[in-house]
Amino acid sequence: MAFQPVLIAGSWRDSQTTGDYLTATNPATKSPLPEKYPVSSLDEVEAALQSAQEAVAALRSMPVEAIAGFLEQFASNIEARTDDLVELANLETALPKEPRLRSVELPRTTDQLRQAAAATRERSWCHATIDTKTNIRSKYGPLGGAVAVFGPNNFPFAFNSCAGGDFAAAIAAGNPVIAKANTGHPGTSKIFAEAAFEAVKATGLPKGMVQLIYRLKPADGLKLVSHPLIGATGFTGSRYAGLQLKEAADKAGKPVYLEMSSINPVFVLSGALEERLSDVANELFTSCSLGAGQFCTNPGLVVLQQDEAGQAFLNTVAEIFQQNEPGILLGKQGPSGIAEAIDVLKEHGAEVVTGGHEVDGPGYRFANTVLRVSGDDFIKNPQALQTEAFGTVTLLVLAKDMAQMQEVASHLEGNLTGCIYSHTQGQDDERYTQIEPILRQKVGRLLNDKMPTGVAVTPAMNHGGPYPATGHPGFTAVGIPASMLRFGALHCYDNVRHHRLPPELGNKNPTGHMWRFIDGEWTQRDV
Amino acid sequence: MAFQPVLIAGSWRDSQTTGDYLTATNPATKSPLPEKYPVSSLDEVEAALQSAQEAVAALRSMPVEAIAGFLEQFASNIEARTDDLVELANLETALPKEPRLRSVELPRTTDQLRQAAAATRERSWCHATIDTKTNIRSKYGPLGGAVAVFGPNNFPFAFNSCAGGDFAAAIAAGNPVIAKANTGHPGTSKIFAEAAFEAVKATGLPKGMVQLIYRLKPADGLKLVSHPLIGATGFTGSRYAGLQLKEAADKAGKPVYLEMSSINPVFVLSGALEERLSDVANELFTSCSLGAGQFCTNPGLVVLQQDEAGQAFLNTVAEIFQQNEPGILLGKQGPSGIAEAIDVLKEHGAEVVTGGHEVDGPGYRFANTVLRVSGDDFIKNPQALQTEAFGTVTLLVLAKDMAQMQEVASHLEGNLTGCIYSHTQGQDDERYTQIEPILRQKVGRLLNDKMPTGVAVTPAMNHGGPYPATGHPGFTAVGIPASMLRFGALHCYDNVRHHRLPPELGNKNPTGHMWRFIDGEWTQRDV
Repeated sequence: MAFQPVLIAGSWRDSQTTGDYLTATNPATKSPLPEKYPVSSLDEVEAALQSAQEAVAALRSMPVEAIAGFLEQFASNIEARTDDLVELANLETALPKEPRLRSVELPRTTDQLRQAAAATRERSWCHATIDTKTNIRSKYGPLGGAVAVFGPNNFPFAFNSCAGGDFAAAIAAGNPVIAKANTGHPGTSKIFAEAAFEAVKATGLPKGMVQLIYRLKPADGLKLVSHPLIGATGFTGSRYAGLQLKEAADKAGKPVYLEMSSINPVFVLSGALEERLSDVANELFTSCSLGAGQFCTNPGLVVLQQDEAGQAFLNTVAEIFQQNEPGILLGKQGPSGIAEAIDVLKEHGAEVVTGGHEVDGPGYRFANTVLRVSGDDFIKNPQALQTEAFGTVTLLVLAKDMAQMQEVASHLEGNLTGCIYSHTQGQDDERYTQIEPILRQKVGRLLNDKMPTGVAVTPAMNHGGPYPATGHPGFTAVGIPASMLRFGALHCYDNVRHHRLPPELGNKNPTGHMWRFIDGEWTQRDV
Repeated sequence: MAFQPVLIAGSWRDSQTTGDYLTATNPATKSPLPEKYPVSSLDEVEAALQSAQEAVAALRSMPVEAIAGFLEQFASNIEARTDDLVELANLETALPKEPRLRSVELPRTTDQLRQAAAATRERSWCHATIDTKTNIRSKYGPLGGAVAVFGPNNFPFAFNSCAGGDFAAAIAAGNPVIAKANTGHPGTSKIFAEAAFEAVKATGLPKGMVQLIYRLKPADGLKLVSHPLIGATGFTGSRYAGLQLKEAADKAGKPVYLEMSSINPVFVLSGALEERLSDVANELFTSCSLGAGQFCTNPGLVVLQQDEAGQAFLNTVAEIFQQNEPGILLGKQGPSGIAEAIDVLKEHGAEVVTGGHEVDGPGYRFANTVLRVSGDDFIKNPQALQTEAFGTVTLLVLAKDMAQMQEVASHLEGNLTGCIYSHTQGQDDERYTQIEPILRQKVGRLLNDKMPTGVAVTPAMNHGGPYPATGHPGFTAVGIPASMLRFGALHCYDNVRHHRLPPELGNKNPTGHMWRFIDGEWTQRDV
């Protein structure tokens, strides 16, 4: 077979391809990998949507237990294929097998799936709300159409379109998924789809529950997210692609959840430098170089005062960045994209302190890079100076005084995270109150004395933030059960006869311990 | 003074008008009312946004008690001005003083404000979530910018942009409001703004908390909802205007909540007709003629089987519609809009059974109208035959059989509500299961044996639904606390020092009885 098969309507079959195809490249050797993955046609998109619609109908009469069972079976199937997954993901992304792929990202992925299964079974996620006086009852239910998931290049497991956070949340909320593989790791995505489809069959879910395509022409991608049969879209990737999908989905009135870009500002207050300059510098490098700097929560902007301590911090940071070897980037676009972003920063007044150039050799690499710019210059071109360089690159903004640090904060775009480092004994508390209120409204997750990488999968997590970091300030892409609400429709039942209600809204608590909001109180009791 | 003043930045002042103005008309006499209301300039929009931004900053250090106190004081101020409000709203809308304005809509409005106050004070609405193991905590907080509220013409009190549901929800979530009066009742809106501003002053809220303008040029309205300083928009009105605002807000990445249009399909199953044909017909008329048919939940489409009972129902409905006097419509656009909509329905195969014409006389009236169309014809032109006629107009779809009723259901657009009437003793239960799964995904609120008008303000209410009824299937415009979440941003705190956390996320429960989601359990306990 010339092309790898797609998973459509319950079978691995030859693609109704456009004729075009893609191959992956090993970023460590710059050599293309042999498999050819088809670019699907619009007919194939239609076939996937129709099959998903049949799944939607079949799911209406299935117990939530079936979905929970599927997610758990899938997690086990992934574990059984750990070696294949680690091997191929390493070839396709050059991310280290150990600890990253095998011991960190794979367990995170299966843990997410199992958390989603538990949330599905436990049912509190659906916010069952019952008003006994009026007999009005409501809960979140499935969207009535497939969720299209577009995964990013930087987490081949944990954000994979066919296994990651959006996949888990969409399925757990009761929706079928049409996964569009990231073109950087199509083979890894295919293994996940195989493992998922085996679990679909083993647990008796409808065959259209999980489908996989590898690539679409851009115009067909827009048609997918705006199609009458689509329920919603989850996307993680570049701002450029994200905004195009957003426009198409918005016009069609279809929900779209985007995680697009973030430079994750870090404010380092004077007391913190006085107390632990070298520690903060090391933490910055460690965070900034994780995954060769290709994390959505990568700290790409550091704001501090331009004084002796500020200069010392800059020197220390530059030294650490310079002394360390750059990691291998995910692809050819890695070094060129970083170089372009640095050019934009330089054009608007930033100076390279260290790095700033591609590194020759067998893998795609870019020198660890520190840039600096004055607060005055930042304020003159705040937008351009927030250009994201997706790598181990950080821009230090040296502000004249606290007032200018506040002004820098007020010019920030929406970000996933924002950090404030301060003296542990309270010497910065006054300064903190000058920055925090401004930063709070610009970010989804506010941190103290901690770098932003490391996104715990727990209920209180917010991996989201104001536009343009994401498309909506009220949702998170990580954290179960909250991330599931994105893929739910609010279903209200007014005077509906008791035997016709979904079990979650009946008088009897369906599990005995599900949390429901009854007459204004969260409770586990029956009505 | 030639023009009525606007409320901007804490003072009633002459408008920076464009020079244009509007007047209201008494729909009962077709006579214009004397007051002239200015069309604001873009400079005035900027001034309002700046003042709101100052309010956002000032609110950061205010206790939620201040907001709750404002909402309660405002409700009392409204009650003190009941006579003025009822008098002027009756002049501007021709809605009956009793019981509608004085005894139904006004108490509903003050009740909403007091419910919002209670929710603000009680704090559970913000979904405080605490993970003790990771020390990650999150809650919904204010958006960081003003909420623009555009109210509809049909509820001068309960959905007023300066007193209604969106206003209450936006303020209760901690945001200032810029109210854009509905041009049908500018004077009523001005009285609300006066009462609100007195309450702002009495309770010490920032002066930019509530602002009022009457009208904007369409292009300036688009600039308002997409402005960098706007937090979000709440809109209730026509699909035409709503979609324009949506496009502008979406492009700027600004949340916009729209309630645009709905024909609220009612499925009447055979057993219900056999059992209580005349009751159902009377309920239909009562619901359809409420507010002269100008309710967003007005039942504009009835689907039933084309058999003897179906024909008898049609005859009975037509007789009741014909025997009753039509109410006075809200304005000149009332009769012409209904006539245009009926023309579209007729062009696509619907026949007028009774009514179908404007009624002469001193007020704007249109004859109560019943149309019929076959299921075959409906399926040929489902979109055109879902054209909303905003009045006492309903279209009966007579389907061949249950399969065709299902097909009709599958062609429905998103609606706020959907009803199924069935035999009380279960004879329709099989038929119910054929329709319900399809209808469920098309509507926000599903009813049994009850017409859709009457939207209780309770936590389980969903006054929302899939596009194009609204812009998002996951939100409700009515029902506290759920409606407040639209105007919240998810704020996460990761490793933030305890004394810097908002009180709702501290270890100690700030009220002793607020519900928080701690380590996966809803609880009122301290951490």
